[in-house]
Amino acid sequence: MQAPDALVDLTEQYLDRLELTPELGAQQESMRYALAGGKRIRAVICLATAEAAGVAPERALPAAGALELVHAFSLVHDDLPALDNDDERRGRPSAHIAFGEGVALLAGDALLAEAFRLALTYPTTAPARELADATLGMIGGQFLDITGGDTDLAQLHRLKTGRLFAASVGLALWVADVPEAEHGPWRAFGEELGMLFQVVDDVLDGDGYAARLGADVARQLAREAGGRANAALERIEADTSVLRTIVDSLVIRTA
Amino acid sequence: MQAPDALVDLTEQYLDRLELTPELGAQQESMRYALAGGKRIRAVICLATAEAAGVAPERALPAAGALELVHAFSLVHDDLPALDNDDERRGRPSAHIAFGEGVALLAGDALLAEAFRLALTYPTTAPARELADATLGMIGGQFLDITGGDTDLAQLHRLKTGRLFAASVGLALWVADVPEAEHGPWRAFGEELGMLFQVVDDVLDGDGYAARLGADVARQLAREAGGRANAALERIEADTSVLRTIVDSLVIRTA
Repeated sequence: MQAPDALVDLTEQYLDRLELTPELGAQQESMRYALAGGKRIRAVICLATAEAAGVAPERALPAAGALELVHAFSLVHDDLPALDNDDERRGRPSAHIAFGEGVALLAGDALLAEAFRLALTYPTTAPARELADATLGMIGGQFLDITGGDTDLAQLHRLKTGRLFAASVGLALWVADVPEAEHGPWRAFGEELGMLFQVVDDVLDGDGYAARLGADVARQLAREAGGRANAALERIEADTSVLRTIVDSLVIRTA
Repeated sequence: MQAPDALVDLTEQYLDRLELTPELGAQQESMRYALAGGKRIRAVICLATAEAAGVAPERALPAAGALELVHAFSLVHDDLPALDNDDERRGRPSAHIAFGEGVALLAGDALLAEAFRLALTYPTTAPARELADATLGMIGGQFLDITGGDTDLAQLHRLKTGRLFAASVGLALWVADVPEAEHGPWRAFGEELGMLFQVVDDVLDGDGYAARLGADVARQLAREAGGRANAALERIEADTSVLRTIVDSLVIRTA
């Protein structure tokens, strides 16, 4: 079993060597810029799930890459003036500051389409279908975020953050050919990850759940989500130790 | 064989009844707005190709719908202030004028993801792969358009317009299970359609090819592209009469 750090390295090497569509020409530069510097947590969850389910993590690299491309697409578009209007991302100028709004808009579009190209390198449609559904749910969450007023925060994050985390597990199940009858506990695990990640992020940033409920209550929410995620892992008859490490290290970040 | 008008009706009925992803909520309204009012020429080419290749056009409706969704996505994003900054589209306010820039941006994203969802309802990955490749080529053309300076106009349109027209034929070939060894003349036909459509459009609008080369030379280009398209159709051992009608009616529009 490869440790999370090794899976991050695997992801970075894969993304570094990833050949983008030649016809994109110089557009590729803005896409690689937008893709650089992430924590790769979605990719790591996908790779670790695939290995726990019995296949080499390398087999899941196109799926993991697709998840990171969808995540990068969502950040590039979210940062645009029409949405969050953020000038900085991952400690650097946002894509639209670095390349202009038009190129950044197209970079996001191209990242999304490339993500499908990667998910479509598998022999069945299942990974790409899961990616499409998750992306649509995520966009539904972004819509709630900009229009929602007093939307239920849990529903918003279940869509905006949770759907792609859940798909990080889901894509790995398809890649590893896990029979659908056995998806239950794996997917229950995946469902908790988005909530866990979001609460942890909010505690670290002092916003969202932490601002609304206070840091102590938010930390308690994170421990509970982590507990449910680990309980789901215990129902899986496989070595899920790396996934457990990922959950625990997320919970610990808030402590 | 169904005539082009009947295929337009089939497409409109399909799009009217198309269920979008429920989690998109009220975002669906902007998507349907952006999708309304097109000429459906890409869908009609897809449906007519499928019928010529031996399957009921209804079988190709999800593919035809996916092409129209990708086209609508590209128009919504193209119209945004960051790109062409067009306030009108199809005789109505552009999506970002009607719904605001943020919602229009997300509407485009969601149309693209829904297009993949539709293309992924087929049993193999081939239609969705063709759609992804065409979309990426199209985005490459959009990038050339905004950054290109004195780019070769033919190369720009081959990507920006041509790739999706070529895919209108290509998706139908996959849907109809035409063996790859027989794709040649069909794809040669598809390759001409984008050029033909673009030149015709420019003659009618008095820009692009017509502005650069003069209306007479542009009309001659349209006749030549139409001639090459029909020559490709003659190499196909099937009833391609409806496709020929589509080509001829495009050429006639410039006369």
